[in-house]
Amino acid sequence: MRNRLSPEQYINGILAGDRLLLSRAITLAESRLPSDQALAQTVLAGVLPHTGRAVRIGITGVPGVGKSTFIETFGKHLTGLGKKLAVLAIDPTSQRSGGSLLGDKTRMETLSVDPLAYIRPSPAGDSLGGVAHRTRETMLLCEAAGFEVILIETVGVGQSETLVHGMVDFFLLLMLAGAGDELQGMKRGIMELADALAITKADGDNKANAKRARVEYQNALHLFPPTGTGWFPPVVTCSATTGEGVADIRALIEEHQALTMQNGSHGQRRQLQQLDWFRSYLRQRLEQQFYAQTGMRERLTAIEEQVRSGSILPVQAVNSLLG
Amino acid sequence: MRNRLSPEQYINGILAGDRLLLSRAITLAESRLPSDQALAQTVLAGVLPHTGRAVRIGITGVPGVGKSTFIETFGKHLTGLGKKLAVLAIDPTSQRSGGSLLGDKTRMETLSVDPLAYIRPSPAGDSLGGVAHRTRETMLLCEAAGFEVILIETVGVGQSETLVHGMVDFFLLLMLAGAGDELQGMKRGIMELADALAITKADGDNKANAKRARVEYQNALHLFPPTGTGWFPPVVTCSATTGEGVADIRALIEEHQALTMQNGSHGQRRQLQQLDWFRSYLRQRLEQQFYAQTGMRERLTAIEEQVRSGSILPVQAVNSLLG
Repeated sequence: MRNRLSPEQYINGILAGDRLLLSRAITLAESRLPSDQALAQTVLAGVLPHTGRAVRIGITGVPGVGKSTFIETFGKHLTGLGKKLAVLAIDPTSQRSGGSLLGDKTRMETLSVDPLAYIRPSPAGDSLGGVAHRTRETMLLCEAAGFEVILIETVGVGQSETLVHGMVDFFLLLMLAGAGDELQGMKRGIMELADALAITKADGDNKANAKRARVEYQNALHLFPPTGTGWFPPVVTCSATTGEGVADIRALIEEHQALTMQNGSHGQRRQLQQLDWFRSYLRQRLEQQFYAQTGMRERLTAIEEQVRSGSILPVQAVNSLLG
Repeated sequence: MRNRLSPEQYINGILAGDRLLLSRAITLAESRLPSDQALAQTVLAGVLPHTGRAVRIGITGVPGVGKSTFIETFGKHLTGLGKKLAVLAIDPTSQRSGGSLLGDKTRMETLSVDPLAYIRPSPAGDSLGGVAHRTRETMLLCEAAGFEVILIETVGVGQSETLVHGMVDFFLLLMLAGAGDELQGMKRGIMELADALAITKADGDNKANAKRARVEYQNALHLFPPTGTGWFPPVVTCSATTGEGVADIRALIEEHQALTMQNGSHGQRRQLQQLDWFRSYLRQRLEQQFYAQTGMRERLTAIEEQVRSGSILPVQAVNSLLG
């Protein structure tokens, strides 16, 4: 990277809320160059004491649920209250395309020119774990730059929802009214992770449907195991078009923060998340060292074919790779 | 281990259905001695072509739901039909106590003396991943010995349900009527993994409650994402005391097998499970190599304390361990 600055310049710039330096620091953290990585880590360590104060919100839902329009409306509501907002994304598809979920900024036309909002596309990476790792670092840099709310969007693909759930204080699941085709893309096990469900597009002819769905899902959630934090995930309806219900969602997130701060579960959740981050990063690095051996990827592909068909046992397969 | 036999003696004994040799082979596979492990792998490789033909059923539910009595009644129903049945367990608590879920055989008095049933306690191990790995190997040995149904029981603690879900064809969740205290011990995300829910203790005064709960849960499951196999998880009631509903559960598992065999999802699920087993075992071995370094466990404990409190970043922590 040309024109690299000193760690102090990045750190002071970020702490002063300089967007350009924030963006450059994020790019540095996303870089694979060892020298960039070393510099990025010095910067991150420097800003670390100034992180952790934002409200971290994860948002997911299947394609077509209206995530972008919801985030646009919800984001404008927050900036309208004077809140500084950063919008990040975890997008497994960007691993293949090199593109990204939020790269197409026209999808959030109003928010992208809002001076209180900062939108950063999903990093492209070779593994979902790598993408999640970099998103966590980006979140810390944004917090140090003074952003008070971090929204992390994810498409409902692969393990991305679980990863986002593992880095936020509040996990919001957007749903469409009716329980049919729109659920096809959703992974099982996700509904039970949500801190709230919001039925989107509750306007016009769809309003009655949405209200009915709200009651059904609320009844269903009563049958779920409790969250263990004293919080009972509510189901609400909202419309990104009319703005109805959007303020209620903000209010219930505040309520959740107040409750979990007070009973200590907010801090516990964050400590566990830190520990999980560390452990998954350690595993990533150990696997990387292993995969980096000459010809290992090819050997692995061949042996996985045998494992899949059941013609070789896992222990034999691993022994032949490690031996 | 004294009196070790040749691989051929174990293999032929297992294939002939010799219980004593089966038990000794399992003990061998559970052993940590490298020479035992090498012998066990030869035996496993030898019987591999004769594995995979059993119906693999996972059973979970919170303590108090009546798992043991259900398995006793369900097991007797199966052996009454002439089926050869093996009952295994994954019990995370056995890591600490060295004891095991099914160690107390008095809990299944009738089944434990049934000539068609074979009950094997959960292995004690230093990690849940290790326990899961050994249970998979035990399952293969039991299949080679001619057992047609494998029941894997787990208590609803830690990640054990997810691990069991990852090694069976059918995952049965036992529930109590009413959605209250009995859910406290259940992990979130488990309900959505179930292939069927069975409300237990549906007898006497509790029958009406159980029937009401059945309708409520069935309505709730309609709102879940589909399984992707064409199977819609049913909710049934049963009583281990009267035996009511037990035959229905056997029938619906058969129905599930027929459907998934026919549409190919049975084979797909098993292939993915094989691959997951291989990958998680590979990770385990890489981590073991890493942890086996002198003083590493102590260093790790100290550094995890710093990570948890947020005073050090994961990358710094991992660098200091790997560097």
